[in-house]
Amino acid sequence: MKGVILAANPHARIVDITHEIPPQDIEAAAFTLLAAQSAFPAGTIHVAVVDPGVGSSRCAILVKTRDAAFVGPDNGIFSYVFEHALGSGAAPKLFHLTNSKYFRHPVSPTFNGRDVFAPVAAALSSGVKPAELGTKTTDFVRLPALMPTTTRDGRLKARIIHIDRFGNCATNIGPDDLTQAMIAGGATLRLKGKVVKSFRRYFAEETTSREKLFAVWGSAGFLEIAAKNDSAAKLLNARRGDEVIVSRL
Amino acid sequence: MKGVILAANPHARIVDITHEIPPQDIEAAAFTLLAAQSAFPAGTIHVAVVDPGVGSSRCAILVKTRDAAFVGPDNGIFSYVFEHALGSGAAPKLFHLTNSKYFRHPVSPTFNGRDVFAPVAAALSSGVKPAELGTKTTDFVRLPALMPTTTRDGRLKARIIHIDRFGNCATNIGPDDLTQAMIAGGATLRLKGKVVKSFRRYFAEETTSREKLFAVWGSAGFLEIAAKNDSAAKLLNARRGDEVIVSRL
Amino acid sequence: MKGVILAANPHARIVDITHEIPPQDIEAAAFTLLAAQSAFPAGTIHVAVVDPGVGSSRCAILVKTRDAAFVGPDNGIFSYVFEHALGSGAAPKLFHLTNSKYFRHPVSPTFNGRDVFAPVAAALSSGVKPAELGTKTTDFVRLPALMPTTTRDGRLKARIIHIDRFGNCATNIGPDDLTQAMIAGGATLRLKGKVVKSFRRYFAEETTSREKLFAVWGSAGFLEIAAKNDSAAKLLNARRGDEVIVSRL
Repeated sequence: MKGVILAANPHARIVDITHEIPPQDIEAAAFTLLAAQSAFPAGTIHVAVVDPGVGSSRCAILVKTRDAAFVGPDNGIFSYVFEHALGSGAAPKLFHLTNSKYFRHPVSPTFNGRDVFAPVAAALSSGVKPAELGTKTTDFVRLPALMPTTTRDGRLKARIIHIDRFGNCATNIGPDDLTQAMIAGGATLRLKGKVVKSFRRYFAEETTSREKLFAVWGSAGFLEIAAKNDSAAKLLNARRGDEVIVSRL
Repeated sequence: MKGVILAANPHARIVDITHEIPPQDIEAAAFTLLAAQSAFPAGTIHVAVVDPGVGSSRCAILVKTRDAAFVGPDNGIFSYVFEHALGSGAAPKLFHLTNSKYFRHPVSPTFNGRDVFAPVAAALSSGVKPAELGTKTTDFVRLPALMPTTTRDGRLKARIIHIDRFGNCATNIGPDDLTQAMIAGGATLRLKGKVVKSFRRYFAEETTSREKLFAVWGSAGFLEIAAKNDSAAKLLNARRGDEVIVSRL
Repeated sequence: MKGVILAANPHARIVDITHEIPPQDIEAAAFTLLAAQSAFPAGTIHVAVVDPGVGSSRCAILVKTRDAAFVGPDNGIFSYVFEHALGSGAAPKLFHLTNSKYFRHPVSPTFNGRDVFAPVAAALSSGVKPAELGTKTTDFVRLPALMPTTTRDGRLKARIIHIDRFGNCATNIGPDDLTQAMIAGGATLRLKGKVVKSFRRYFAEETTSREKLFAVWGSAGFLEIAAKNDSAAKLLNARRGDEVIVSRL
């Protein structure tokens, strides 16, 4: 993919975000894209390839937000960055990448990253307009909504959206859902039959609490459940998708 | 190595292909180089270091094809790109890298990547001519031939040349050896006591076949044996080098 | 981090050294920095983030040597490069990075790499002077001294400072501590109850010795204990910090 990009645009700057998304794990990719994108300069083109449906009739898609472009398979991988952009007040534009003029030929039915996404991203970086690359659309594949919901009795119904290699469990709870004031007032998290009441500002914070599990704001902007010198995921037997209920006093 | 290259040529563009070749696995490196090189722009210099013989009398080599240069240990690592270039009708030129003027000194006998291959690649990228870097040669270390052979009774005798992390087994069968017409006519693959008759266009293709194992054209241009949601290598107990016999009806 | 750097300085050249330091392993990072830095061009800015204390009161630090700058947490990670520079006769300058004007805001208490080290490194690369980034200091966190000591009876008291993925055990013995002449004269290494008498010039060297363990000069400039086609660390049950005693005849 890097070779294809540099062949089309020798001035492209390419950086690797990660090569450690588990095979076929679309949700892990969606979370990683969301976490990484805000730190990149305006005009960045993100190319992502976690693509179990490669070769099938699934579309290739371009998600164009105000500041960035995202090129890859239409399988939900850009679902969170789309929703995040929407929440910022600017609806992204969507294009199905149908113009094979910008593909590398012959297109391998087993590696669209090299033959579709990379050359299209290179074309974009060279100034080709999105509308030339395909057809505008509003229809695309989405993961379950990123944001938590509120129950009738005022509790927050959230879920684990990512587990990192240390076993920290990132929830989909953001600073708009649970403010520092709420935390100071005594919020509690319930998940997997356990209650987490302890909040820390950072992982190594010393507290008087004897509880092993605690909550901490992760660097992606979401509340994470962590464990002192241990894997919270293991202690909780937690998996992505597990429900987290927040009660505020 | 990157530091050495940038110190010699601050304008060099460096991209990583992979750091995940198993230790000392020359054949895996040879396959990866073959798979990657065709996507890179003309003029690319490929540096490769899988080098169990470092420090011994094994030579350092430059393989100069029409479009690219390959710098590394003369241990077979460039065997497949050499053979591929030869098959395209242009015999590569070979140089043993003997001119220590272009090395980084002192040359560590345990890391020629940093002290020999990287500085020589940087010199090449700065315009130094191959003939200045060493002596022309025709003698170099080669792996078993990449291409399959044909038996007297017209069957194709191929082998597994690579197993990827999903357990897909790449054979050395290319589109010249087994055309789509032959597949449509009913070719079968025999390996490890099993018969593979099912062909798919891509991994996720839905078929009526109940067979777990199937063949598919991989992105490197070779026929691969894969398994539905499983590791073909595990199911077959396959290893690189295992024979694959193709019969055509 | 790469996004933050490129947003601040689009002309920055970024290369990855490694993403494989074990979690929270400050000594492995310190050794890797020492091994890598000498190959990079003058003016390189090294950013390192192995940072178990992130968010706590541990400082952020800039170590400015004659040729390079190092930006990261003040937790010992730059201890070896500091000591190495000192040994070369030029005392590095130290600055605690206190000027939040150069941080990315809001500063996450769980990822200073992105919000402190990366933007400060970008500022440095754009020409901002160290003194503008914080306050000069002489006080910083140091690991146990890199260099071996000599016992009263003239033996060298060294230790294992790094174990690589092959199980090779790098000691802190350098060419000033144990010269080739001493080796030729018959030096022996004692560690973990075993004696190593065999020295090789490179890993694959053929010797008449039947001993599995041998010593070899590693590419970072330190004597390593290795095993023929095996893991020396496993054979010795060795861990970083284990004592190595060198006797010279």
